[in-house]
Amino acid sequence: MALKNTREANYPEWYQNVIAAADMAENSVSPGCMVIKSWGYGMWEKIRDIFDEKFKETGHENCYFPMFIPLSFFQKEAEHVEGFAKEMAVVTHSRLGAEEGKLVPQSPLDEPLIVRPTSETIIADSFAKWIKSYRDLPVLVNQWANVVRWEMRPRLFLRTREFLWQEGHTAHATAAEAEAETKQMLEIYRDVAENALALPVIVGRKPEYDKFPGAVDTYCIEAMMQDGKALQAGTSHFLGQNFARSANISFINSEGKPEFAYTTSWGVSTRLIGGIIMTHADDEGMVVPPRIAPYQVVLVPVVKNEADREKISAYIEKVRALLKSATPFGEKIRIKIDNRNKSSVDKFWEWTRKGAPIICEIGIRDADGGNVMLRERLKLGTPEGKEIVALDELAAQIAGRLENIQREMFARAEKRLQSNLRTDIATHEEFNRYFANASKFLKEGDNNNVAFVRGKWSGDPNSDELLKALKITIRCIPFDQSGTTGECLLTGKPGATIDVIYARSY
Amino acid sequence: MALKNTREANYPEWYQNVIAAADMAENSVSPGCMVIKSWGYGMWEKIRDIFDEKFKETGHENCYFPMFIPLSFFQKEAEHVEGFAKEMAVVTHSRLGAEEGKLVPQSPLDEPLIVRPTSETIIADSFAKWIKSYRDLPVLVNQWANVVRWEMRPRLFLRTREFLWQEGHTAHATAAEAEAETKQMLEIYRDVAENALALPVIVGRKPEYDKFPGAVDTYCIEAMMQDGKALQAGTSHFLGQNFARSANISFINSEGKPEFAYTTSWGVSTRLIGGIIMTHADDEGMVVPPRIAPYQVVLVPVVKNEADREKISAYIEKVRALLKSATPFGEKIRIKIDNRNKSSVDKFWEWTRKGAPIICEIGIRDADGGNVMLRERLKLGTPEGKEIVALDELAAQIAGRLENIQREMFARAEKRLQSNLRTDIATHEEFNRYFANASKFLKEGDNNNVAFVRGKWSGDPNSDELLKALKITIRCIPFDQSGTTGECLLTGKPGATIDVIYARSY
Repeated sequence: MALKNTREANYPEWYQNVIAAADMAENSVSPGCMVIKSWGYGMWEKIRDIFDEKFKETGHENCYFPMFIPLSFFQKEAEHVEGFAKEMAVVTHSRLGAEEGKLVPQSPLDEPLIVRPTSETIIADSFAKWIKSYRDLPVLVNQWANVVRWEMRPRLFLRTREFLWQEGHTAHATAAEAEAETKQMLEIYRDVAENALALPVIVGRKPEYDKFPGAVDTYCIEAMMQDGKALQAGTSHFLGQNFARSANISFINSEGKPEFAYTTSWGVSTRLIGGIIMTHADDEGMVVPPRIAPYQVVLVPVVKNEADREKISAYIEKVRALLKSATPFGEKIRIKIDNRNKSSVDKFWEWTRKGAPIICEIGIRDADGGNVMLRERLKLGTPEGKEIVALDELAAQIAGRLENIQREMFARAEKRLQSNLRTDIATHEEFNRYFANASKFLKEGDNNNVAFVRGKWSGDPNSDELLKALKITIRCIPFDQSGTTGECLLTGKPGATIDVIYARSY
Repeated sequence: MALKNTREANYPEWYQNVIAAADMAENSVSPGCMVIKSWGYGMWEKIRDIFDEKFKETGHENCYFPMFIPLSFFQKEAEHVEGFAKEMAVVTHSRLGAEEGKLVPQSPLDEPLIVRPTSETIIADSFAKWIKSYRDLPVLVNQWANVVRWEMRPRLFLRTREFLWQEGHTAHATAAEAEAETKQMLEIYRDVAENALALPVIVGRKPEYDKFPGAVDTYCIEAMMQDGKALQAGTSHFLGQNFARSANISFINSEGKPEFAYTTSWGVSTRLIGGIIMTHADDEGMVVPPRIAPYQVVLVPVVKNEADREKISAYIEKVRALLKSATPFGEKIRIKIDNRNKSSVDKFWEWTRKGAPIICEIGIRDADGGNVMLRERLKLGTPEGKEIVALDELAAQIAGRLENIQREMFARAEKRLQSNLRTDIATHEEFNRYFANASKFLKEGDNNNVAFVRGKWSGDPNSDELLKALKITIRCIPFDQSGTTGECLLTGKPGATIDVIYARSY
């Protein structure tokens, strides 16, 4: 029943197999775009709700800004356009008309419009109108929206031309407040990634050459995938006064003097779902962290004799009623009864491939005995993977079981990260040898895996090119710097002081 | 403190004044688009959540489909392209490049892409892939998304080039099931409009010439605005096999024969917010139905003496803590403490213009006496509009008060609809005389208001032109037909049997 490709045999194909087998998304006829299907979109809804609550708790309000940005806006911030111009969808006409029996674009626009790749420029324009005095600050907004970047090698969830995200945008009276905001939002990203998505992450700052176009500082959370590559899972940017200056977001400060505001922006996207797949899925399919599972418990009737159907159905309703009052993670439990006209074996494997955390199969013997046959997805294939549990026991345990699964998923991923993060590589030579190969898949207990290296960097201005030659990247400069000095792993120069994370990446 | 324009003096300007005074939205520099600000977006979030729960209860699942639709898709359904071609945003290029120092569109696309005006064609393409057998049916999906129609006379919430909506799309094995779905969703629209938005509506079917392009039947809910005009507040379409045929959504039916599926689509949009404004707002500003108010109760500290500030703050926290357990409409109550550095009088008027249902002003005498000064927005300017209420009483009453306000808002709007829906006009001549004038504003108790007429229609094929000449429309053919015969109000022909609603409209 395994997927067509295992992680070890063909990791990129395995990734596509998981998504197809779990029915989470598919490629669309619309070039480079994806259709997010209900099992994938259901996860996104949970992710959205968890973040949204934290954004609101920290004083942010949701708004919605236009997705069409006048072309001229991109000329305002020079670095910004430089960073995005190559991958923009440009609207040039406002109607279709027939010419020689063919539909063609008509009514050219006076000024072409860009479908937002990100909204700093258009939101800055609103901020400039809203902000007059220090009393108007801070302004703290967020939007949930679709954005477009013209990817040439699209990949479901990781890189599609259109994707969904949230983008927070804030303006402050002082640099210190804006920097504190940037770091506060990064901390929310770390918290949700680790505690809701079970993705352990390394937090840090991007090197100069890899900042968001127009930012003063970009902070990020970086996760390790099962092939040892890094995935940037969220970024938070301190924009200084750059966008304020180009959009004229000026205010009268408390001393009565005009000043430019300090702004920030921060975002996470549906890419997170790609990260969740590559962290938790296995060779049988998807494994969904319970906190974001559209259904946490699936009840599958097993009817071998038609005469038993009614009795089993009634018993399953009783199971649902008993489980319903459970509140895993302090929320309403999400239960699905799968009454479709299919064999129970097919249903079991379907929910297994989808990665539903708990599947209960319920037949006549269970109904008679007051039990259920319980299977935890995470224990699939192990002797503990199949348990007969008494119904009253199940009701008492269900929230705790889901919370345990969540913890266990994080613990496994955390262990993988720690055991594949090399900190003992001290020389340029050793470093080159290490990255000469790449792992297809991080085998547990294997000491030859190639993944992350934490080591010294000199900050050499040619780093970007040297890294490209090695096909690696600097993921971040972690916040917890050691303060020691050593050989720059990238250049071999002595006296390097900066600790960085080196890795291949998505 | 009233708005610049009253409803009676200048209704269209009044509408803009309400939105500005309530800070709900504003025109954007992006031509024809709006920025939805937090007070307006907060209402949309509530509206979304209420609908979303009902969609899910009736078995629909959320998905997300690409917003870019290949141009060729619009050639598949002839009526459909006819209906939308004039107002489409067309993407023709995928990058910007510098030419003679100016940024210009570069990299033309092989096939232009249309930014979705609605998604029947692209979703039908997915359905064609998903549906093979009658066992795969029904397919019931919904998406919350942005859509684009190139409006030439944009107006906040009512007609903007980009707006937010939900679009449900379903496929069924039989026409009867698809029709039942279409009507089920219309009933959900009616229910939410009346019970959550306090918008009384007339339900019915659109006349042939006014159907959704490509539909067999379009059903709608129609609301009456305070100027007597109708607003279409939601539509539900039975598409028959039209889109299934053009996209090849075919399946093997239970008799083993190939057949085209029957599809439906249905939608409501941010336009509803325009309808809520024009139904409930008054000359002082917005009035928000409590069920969708971002904040239902606003607590405003009144500090006349700095020495009292701490005591008042502590008391307000106590008020919040006591109110917090209330569950109006079976949901968590939404309370805001307004601690901004502004005068309490300014704050009171700001929340009044925003239409927060209940504002409590709390000063030192209230803190000492265990009271609050309570104001219901709906009673503004009346002797009952200002009450001193004991705190324990308030906590006991608050949910009931909010529910009463909701009921009263619906009752007022319902009374307006009923008393301005003429059913006694029997002749073409009388009908013409009636619509020779238009009301600016439906004055209560005034018998000269011009609004809706319910009367006979012959179904004459030239109706559309005759209606245009009178600057009126047929809103719908109500479900509750009388079965009587009479003079067609539009043409004067005898023997007309169809009851319709005639009105001016948005």
